[in-house]
Amino acid sequence: MSQSITTIGLDADDTLWHNENIFETHHKIFCDILSDYHDTKTVEKQLFDIEMKNLNLYGYGIKSFTLSSIETAIKLTEGKIDVDEIKRIIERCKEMLDHPVELLGHVPSIVQQLSESYRLILITKGDLRDQERKIARSGLAQCFEATEIVSEKTSSSYARILQRHSIDPKQFLMVGNSLKSDILPVLDLGGYGVHIPYATTWIHERVDSPPAPNSFFHQLDSIEELPPLLEKIG
Amino acid sequence: MSQSITTIGLDADDTLWHNENIFETHHKIFCDILSDYHDTKTVEKQLFDIEMKNLNLYGYGIKSFTLSSIETAIKLTEGKIDVDEIKRIIERCKEMLDHPVELLGHVPSIVQQLSESYRLILITKGDLRDQERKIARSGLAQCFEATEIVSEKTSSSYARILQRHSIDPKQFLMVGNSLKSDILPVLDLGGYGVHIPYATTWIHERVDSPPAPNSFFHQLDSIEELPPLLEKIG
Repeated sequence: MSQSITTIGLDADDTLWHNENIFETHHKIFCDILSDYHDTKTVEKQLFDIEMKNLNLYGYGIKSFTLSSIETAIKLTEGKIDVDEIKRIIERCKEMLDHPVELLGHVPSIVQQLSESYRLILITKGDLRDQERKIARSGLAQCFEATEIVSEKTSSSYARILQRHSIDPKQFLMVGNSLKSDILPVLDLGGYGVHIPYATTWIHERVDSPPAPNSFFHQLDSIEELPPLLEKIG
Repeated sequence: MSQSITTIGLDADDTLWHNENIFETHHKIFCDILSDYHDTKTVEKQLFDIEMKNLNLYGYGIKSFTLSSIETAIKLTEGKIDVDEIKRIIERCKEMLDHPVELLGHVPSIVQQLSESYRLILITKGDLRDQERKIARSGLAQCFEATEIVSEKTSSSYARILQRHSIDPKQFLMVGNSLKSDILPVLDLGGYGVHIPYATTWIHERVDSPPAPNSFFHQLDSIEELPPLLEKIG
């Protein structure tokens, strides 16, 4: 049996389209709302702490982020926040959910090109409805043989996906911007990982020490570099 | 090829475990919070209207419901709601998410029994993380060959599930408490539908006229009646 790569998994947020920048804009607005009470650093720290405390219950996504934002605003102002500001946070939530999908450079042509030679699977985590909407809006859905939306990207969730599609991990390559969610769990299973960092990484997705480059792990600056890499390792 | 039923799809909320009663409790608390401003009927109507307006953006689930509750409270009090009450709504959200799973009568033994003769697939809609947690807590996960969590239960979402598992609709029977989400889309595809009504049905899930009983559509009072029905039609 050939061990060449047959299937490519692609992460979505910050790999195919911009996402973290939408949250960053919200963070700025949120810090601005609370600027009469606390400095940016305090607000950011409290928001992150509350998000992490709620993560297991809420999961990822904009609605979870919004509920944690409201909780943070109430806590940091000791209940003195104006109700109109809470209304504004909810309106921002809707704007974020309804935000147009902005593809990263080279994505449409490269994804199209890869789909001609490989099975492509979109593997993303977060809110079901929101992710489905973004996939539909991206115009890329038809390039993917399957879409998998999971609540957490771990070795066991990747193993379930590979099993469901009868994919040998040795023939699977995952591409994404998060070492923690896209790369390490796949390397663990014996697959390939290609890390394409986004401009910014949410603290929760950071890892202390990335793996040393080896034949299973590669780091690229842009998805444009993926086809030549595949020719080399494929 | 035999046309007998090989695969049973089971809905989760209000089919395997109680769910609507948790929302009802929240409705009562919510109406109580707003009772200084409006009567129950006005509150319920405004909340439902806002939930429906937000449904496409938010999707189903407790977090969506909570965000719509906060929006309703702000609107119905013209911003005069006490911030502490908003805090209370968020606390209720967490309690709902963390609520123990209460199985309906006869569910454990019947699901176990069915799993010995049929492929069982759990098919539910809503929030990914919340549904996964409930499945894990139910103690029933090992009875199911697969779990499918979708953002909306339509003919096309059922068709995708059947295709993914190579199931002929004529050999598929779906069991659930919602005619709209569990039964009609499956009958549309040529499968079997068994409706087991729950004590209460959320207005959004109600349909004007149920299908007349026929060889593909059956109505039962309890899941306990399912094995004898299967013997008859199987």
